[in-house]
Amino acid sequence: MKNTNAKNLPRLNGNLEPQILKEAIKQFKTPLFVYDLDRITKRYNELKEAFGGRKNLICYALKANSNLNILKHLHSLESGADCVSLGEIKRALKAGIPSYKIIYSGVGKQDLEIQEAINLGILFINVESFEELLRIELIAKQLNKTARISIRVNPNIDPQTHPYISTGLQENKFGVSIEDAKAMYIHSKNSQSLEPIGIHFHIGSQLTKLQPIEESARKIASLTHSLIALKIDIKFFDIGGGLGITYNDEETINPYDYAQAILDSIRGLDVTIICEPGRYIVGNSGVFLTQVLYEKNNSNKRFTIVDGAMNDLIRPSLYNAYHKVVALKDLEETSATDVVGPVCESGDYLAKNVLLPKLEHGDILAILSAGAYGFSMSSNYNTRGRCAEIAVKNGEIKLIRKRENFEDLIRLEEI
Amino acid sequence: MKNTNAKNLPRLNGNLEPQILKEAIKQFKTPLFVYDLDRITKRYNELKEAFGGRKNLICYALKANSNLNILKHLHSLESGADCVSLGEIKRALKAGIPSYKIIYSGVGKQDLEIQEAINLGILFINVESFEELLRIELIAKQLNKTARISIRVNPNIDPQTHPYISTGLQENKFGVSIEDAKAMYIHSKNSQSLEPIGIHFHIGSQLTKLQPIEESARKIASLTHSLIALKIDIKFFDIGGGLGITYNDEETINPYDYAQAILDSIRGLDVTIICEPGRYIVGNSGVFLTQVLYEKNNSNKRFTIVDGAMNDLIRPSLYNAYHKVVALKDLEETSATDVVGPVCESGDYLAKNVLLPKLEHGDILAILSAGAYGFSMSSNYNTRGRCAEIAVKNGEIKLIRKRENFEDLIRLEEI
Repeated sequence: MKNTNAKNLPRLNGNLEPQILKEAIKQFKTPLFVYDLDRITKRYNELKEAFGGRKNLICYALKANSNLNILKHLHSLESGADCVSLGEIKRALKAGIPSYKIIYSGVGKQDLEIQEAINLGILFINVESFEELLRIELIAKQLNKTARISIRVNPNIDPQTHPYISTGLQENKFGVSIEDAKAMYIHSKNSQSLEPIGIHFHIGSQLTKLQPIEESARKIASLTHSLIALKIDIKFFDIGGGLGITYNDEETINPYDYAQAILDSIRGLDVTIICEPGRYIVGNSGVFLTQVLYEKNNSNKRFTIVDGAMNDLIRPSLYNAYHKVVALKDLEETSATDVVGPVCESGDYLAKNVLLPKLEHGDILAILSAGAYGFSMSSNYNTRGRCAEIAVKNGEIKLIRKRENFEDLIRLEEI
Repeated sequence: MKNTNAKNLPRLNGNLEPQILKEAIKQFKTPLFVYDLDRITKRYNELKEAFGGRKNLICYALKANSNLNILKHLHSLESGADCVSLGEIKRALKAGIPSYKIIYSGVGKQDLEIQEAINLGILFINVESFEELLRIELIAKQLNKTARISIRVNPNIDPQTHPYISTGLQENKFGVSIEDAKAMYIHSKNSQSLEPIGIHFHIGSQLTKLQPIEESARKIASLTHSLIALKIDIKFFDIGGGLGITYNDEETINPYDYAQAILDSIRGLDVTIICEPGRYIVGNSGVFLTQVLYEKNNSNKRFTIVDGAMNDLIRPSLYNAYHKVVALKDLEETSATDVVGPVCESGDYLAKNVLLPKLEHGDILAILSAGAYGFSMSSNYNTRGRCAEIAVKNGEIKLIRKRENFEDLIRLEEI
């Protein structure tokens, strides 16, 4: 078989050409995450332009990749932030994103987090249940402030994706039904401590079909109309995120079609659109680089053992996710192999049954599409220090997070 | 339904009585890991006694839980250490475990790790492939030293457990076949830089059936006899770890039966038995404590939303693992609920469909059997600081790892 993958690398990862990756490894070793800031710019601008005809705010979803340098870069593009914890709100602020561009989502907010979100004057809190609404009201009252809120409505639509990342069905923990939302808006309108200014839905992650989004938007727009009739002044129509990317050969949603579908659905509504892309912006802007330690064969099954592992990139183990693997090597002949890490579990693999040339100690593999949910989910399992992170901009390499050493791992432990 | 779980808490977790847990929370908040050092002592001693009639060394498997304080405690019981990275070797040494009680296992060892393992004079390196053997030989030669080794033999036996944690089949990445092992031992015997002193097998984790272990031990013992006939002086018979624990109602292997089966299989061999328990020692010695934020119902489905999440305890998401959940509350009436965390994924759950009493903001849930593969696999996903860890000994509470704060999370990032 031919090693055709190598030719895909420049296409899939913008400026991350092999010689830049090799230079990054020379300076910072492996395993390593490398992000292409120019590609991040391109993705952000594509989406921004698609919504160009309308008031809009893109709130980058930090959970995909919250490195401060990446946030600072997105801030320079005028991005807002979608945060799911006080930690993420602090990251956004630290990177310079102003509080009025920050929204706070998530199904389980702690009292302290709600307090801080109100005190910091962020744009609004996305509320996930009546119980949470009452909690926010109570805390706002104690602070003698008004909490700006939006309610996450669960449109009960199947996003047709992996069950772990689908969130828009009523059997999920997320959001509230349309009927409950209405009651919550009326309660909020009548409260001294709550100001309902937005409406929100988010049906899942890695969405590759437009139709469920369109259907959800229409349902939520219809609810918005009825809220406005009740004199509830909805100013922000938060369409969530979840736009999918190509890991293998998935068809994805065109940003222009996406924007048109949303714009169609909100005809007649005077609202600012908020969009919360995460993976869409950073997913294909990052690669994970790992070095071959050995190859071995167990009863005719080929294994390529590398220095990267499930603690660095857990998506293959956790979601059975596919990532393209490219050898930075020019051999043409390939055969099937499993790319596995040093962690003592059979679940520790980065790719199964991929075609790669014969590899030797020291050869480099690039695991593509690793910019989202890569480093952000990484751990110290097996007492492995987390990787360094590198940003590339205009061909310049910059260290944006140091590799963890042994002292970093034990500094909070008391012997 | 009756809340009968609460009565199980003392039985399952030794000294961790509700009032101690409540005191720990008062001092250190939630989410929180609490470990019972007295129970760790008990488990260690049970296994030690089972092998009492024979030369043996228990090498605790750090990957289950590598907190330095726990290692120090195990060192006080004279435990050795089974390590799978240089980081783990450093942890063991830091806790006081002497190098001659440390073994180094794992399918992907880096050059630097091999160098250090040889330089530190650990007991032996468990070798996983011919390629790795050659690498170790080369590095030992460069260092002008002899590397003590053992070879991990894959007995090709189905451990009858979760595919992610089974390691003893030839289709796994682990170890080498009996034929390959023989060739590697002969190569090692003839090498100036290698000294083969041990033989090793490990067929998986969370084993609850004795028969596959027994069968493996007999296969490996038979190989050992033939190696000794070749004048290869095998001094250590390393039976791996993997002894299962009771999460729900699993039958487990009795340590005495386990030891007898091993002793039977090695009749006539003058070897020291090495055993590598991890989960067996710490699994049921730890609980994960989390606080209820809200309860909500989505179309008649009950959700209990807590402040702990998949970033703290990933076993339910990753392995679909079951953990008992106990409410520290005296209500008798229960109904079924999903215990879910604040992370924005439907995969973020700690338990599904468990019977719990009606819960309110601030109520505490104890997630049992969380001492192994709990904290050690935890991450900062969603910019959540990792939990504090607490040890309890003779009823005394001690902080053994500080909770991570925001500054801890960003200190290696360069803005």
